Amino acid sequence: MKLKVKDIDISSGGPLVAVVNHEDAAMLDLHVMDRIKIGKGKKIETVVVDIAESDKVVPKGRLGVFEEVINSLKLKNNDKVDIRIARKPLSIDYIKKKLDGLKLSQKEINQIVWDIVHNKLSAVELAYFVAACYTNVMSTEETIMLTKAMVKHGEVLNLGKRPIVDKHSIGGIPGNRTTLVIVPIIAAAGYFIPKTSSRSITSAAGTADTMEVLADVTFPISKMREIVLKTRGCIVWGGSLNLAPADDKIIAVERPLEIDAESQLLASIMAKKHSVSSTHIVIDVPVGRDSKVKNKVEALRLKKEFEKIGKRLKKHVRVLLTDGSQPIGNGIGPALEARDVLWLLKRDPRRPLDLERKCLKMCAEIFNMVGVKNSYKRALEILDSGRAYSKMVEIIKAQNGKEIAAEDIKIGKFHFDVLSARSGRVAGIDNLSVSRIARIAGAPDDKGAGIYLYKHVSDKVKRGEKLFTIYAESRHEFGYAKDVAKSARVFMIS
Amino acid sequence: MKLKVKDIDISSGGPLVAVVNHEDAAMLDLHVMDRIKIGKGKKIETVVVDIAESDKVVPKGRLGVFEEVINSLKLKNNDKVDIRIARKPLSIDYIKKKLDGLKLSQKEINQIVWDIVHNKLSAVELAYFVAACYTNVMSTEETIMLTKAMVKHGEVLNLGKRPIVDKHSIGGIPGNRTTLVIVPIIAAAGYFIPKTSSRSITSAAGTADTMEVLADVTFPISKMREIVLKTRGCIVWGGSLNLAPADDKIIAVERPLEIDAESQLLASIMAKKHSVSSTHIVIDVPVGRDSKVKNKVEALRLKKEFEKIGKRLKKHVRVLLTDGSQPIGNGIGPALEARDVLWLLKRDPRRPLDLERKCLKMCAEIFNMVGVKNSYKRALEILDSGRAYSKMVEIIKAQNGKEIAAEDIKIGKFHFDVLSARSGRVAGIDNLSVSRIARIAGAPDDKGAGIYLYKHVSDKVKRGEKLFTIYAESRHEFGYAKDVAKSARVFMIS
Repeated sequence: MKLKVKDIDISSGGPLVAVVNHEDAAMLDLHVMDRIKIGKGKKIETVVVDIAESDKVVPKGRLGVFEEVINSLKLKNNDKVDIRIARKPLSIDYIKKKLDGLKLSQKEINQIVWDIVHNKLSAVELAYFVAACYTNVMSTEETIMLTKAMVKHGEVLNLGKRPIVDKHSIGGIPGNRTTLVIVPIIAAAGYFIPKTSSRSITSAAGTADTMEVLADVTFPISKMREIVLKTRGCIVWGGSLNLAPADDKIIAVERPLEIDAESQLLASIMAKKHSVSSTHIVIDVPVGRDSKVKNKVEALRLKKEFEKIGKRLKKHVRVLLTDGSQPIGNGIGPALEARDVLWLLKRDPRRPLDLERKCLKMCAEIFNMVGVKNSYKRALEILDSGRAYSKMVEIIKAQNGKEIAAEDIKIGKFHFDVLSARSGRVAGIDNLSVSRIARIAGAPDDKGAGIYLYKHVSDKVKRGEKLFTIYAESRHEFGYAKDVAKSARVFMIS
Repeated sequence: MKLKVKDIDISSGGPLVAVVNHEDAAMLDLHVMDRIKIGKGKKIETVVVDIAESDKVVPKGRLGVFEEVINSLKLKNNDKVDIRIARKPLSIDYIKKKLDGLKLSQKEINQIVWDIVHNKLSAVELAYFVAACYTNVMSTEETIMLTKAMVKHGEVLNLGKRPIVDKHSIGGIPGNRTTLVIVPIIAAAGYFIPKTSSRSITSAAGTADTMEVLADVTFPISKMREIVLKTRGCIVWGGSLNLAPADDKIIAVERPLEIDAESQLLASIMAKKHSVSSTHIVIDVPVGRDSKVKNKVEALRLKKEFEKIGKRLKKHVRVLLTDGSQPIGNGIGPALEARDVLWLLKRDPRRPLDLERKCLKMCAEIFNMVGVKNSYKRALEILDSGRAYSKMVEIIKAQNGKEIAAEDIKIGKFHFDVLSARSGRVAGIDNLSVSRIARIAGAPDDKGAGIYLYKHVSDKVKRGEKLFTIYAESRHEFGYAKDVAKSARVFMIS
């Protein structure tokens, strides 16, 4: 059937979708979410069908196409195209198979990941895949296959060096900016650490957001390679690199139900490490009520899985269970966190010691893996000698930034101190409230917005003493954040 | 936040969806598939958010709205509306709960069904519900709750009479038009049988499509009530009646994976029976390789479930396992099936005897339930006496139709005989090929299109003897159907 293209000027946000008028659809026996092949000259693309019940947007004889199809086939309005019925992608059968509780083969998982990366699956079909992996939990074997498939269908960074060090902290803990301390220490010790980080989704800042206060973070993979070969380390945003791209599409579909399928968490992390060819990896698993990992049993199971998968991928993997019950460091929000990091690297007395201890522990673990003796002491020496700070400046410059004093980092001009209503001891700090108030104050988009904590769990506090300060860049958001802070229970004092 | 409405002139096909520009979305910390409340005067509607990454269709300050939202809030282009973040519907938590393998309560299932009926869930969220019920199979208890919830959130037909007879045939068998024979027999015997039927989705004709050859089938529920109170029976299209409306929305999401969750099949059928207040129900379960129910074990389990649920809903339910291995009757396609039915009711020698025997068996089962003695004989008497035919004419007239002779039903003018290539015995007929060829020939939209079978399984056949005729109304589709028939293996002769 020949149809005339109509550019409906909307993006589907991923999947290749075209809209057929209901009369044309009846002729071809097409239903919503069926597939058609669209032919333009020699190019053919298979897309998902939507059906227009009225003639307003897509009249009979027209084919409404979303942006993604326009781009893929290089279509113009009123182009004549040929359409015919297409089979469903093979991966539909495999998703059904997994939903039926059966195990998938490498070939089948490859096909699913290929179809995800190439936008061949609708959001509903992808949701079935996520649901299938969530309820019929993938075996370690399948998770390894998924990891490999994710790496295979994306870009890979190959430095041609060994060892390649990497680290990952599972999210959800405000202020947990270990990367910005660990990367310069490891690089200063002479090891390659090509680190990719994420931006915030629901927290006050992702590592990429914080690094962006000091330098650029968006680079093509060729430039990332150049930076790492020069300085041995980098801290760049993973989102622009097309490493394991299936992962982001899966995460988008998990959001509505806040599902976190364990096999996908594992595959997602390991695929991103595998795609930068890392050989020695330390993984930080914060355990706590408000963390992704709620308790020690869950954490130990995860640790075991990480180690099994690492072994099978021929990587050295160490998993550290850490305290996820309260924020790490004092600053929460990009600029406040960047200031903490610079203080720490410059050995300023105002540096957050909890963050320092955690970073040293993780560095020591890495050093142990690559065979450095007296690992903890060695990491501390690199820090104390100023070599980590120099390395950080080198990395910042390689990423188009300038050396800046911690004091010169711009913090939001509106600020408000929250005081303790009673004397006692800090029994707990609510991670979710901390993140929420910092976000409402403007973080991470307003770099200077956030929260600065003066107390941590177990600290003594007097009535009227400062617990934390809220910073904001705009008056409007400042007012709203103050209101929320007044009604929230951020600190528990006993 | 105040935004100006932009009618984007597209229907979402159900869910209430609005599109926010990415900059406005960042300000409100909104992500794809989050919810917002849209306020217009005193009316407030909660909708699902989509985000426009470019400014082309939805610039900053505008709110792109799909048809469903326009209608629900009576919006006009450029209206100013107030938007703010809304909580996710409660049912999201319950869907997650089911996905986690836990049992749902009546309250929770009610909430899910309410949200489905009121378009509060996105297609992805609905897919998670279907996946959850499919993998973590619902208990009988939950299925009963789902049935009740589906009935509660839809219209109900209450005739104020007892008993109310009903029947259902599980689909997938070409030509299985028992309803058009059973309804007039039962009504002629004096029992109320307010039958709703479906249109074809993937077959050559649904009962509603076939009845439409003889009479109207689309009525409001008030008119359906009037017809049944007058003639005791009706054969109307269920799709226009808003009986258990959640069901259709669930079925739409099952399509991409061709999932058929047993609990949903059970709830769907029982809800539609319950919503017309039926008290005595016979269910026809065709068993066969190409049927919905593949084997006897599956069929017996289904039978048990139907009976359990019937008991709990205080209904008499009988389940008959029938032969689903080949088509029933000779005509496949609306007009050809309607002709078969009229021949059968008029006792014409050309009537299909396999369909007649099956209908009599089902009527006998109904008579047994309501306490009629010599049930099979009684049903046959009603048929032979012409009372069933008279009743059918009465129903046709009540549904705005006219009495018509079987010979006057218009069959497609293009026809092609398919002959046997060898002599032998019919070992099998491929249901799927039969449906497919009939659909390609134009059924069900072209009422006169379809297939007429001359042979059934076990019949002897000579080389060159007619196996079936393809009928079509248009030359184009006729040619295509002929081509497909030549390459398909419709009859297996041994």
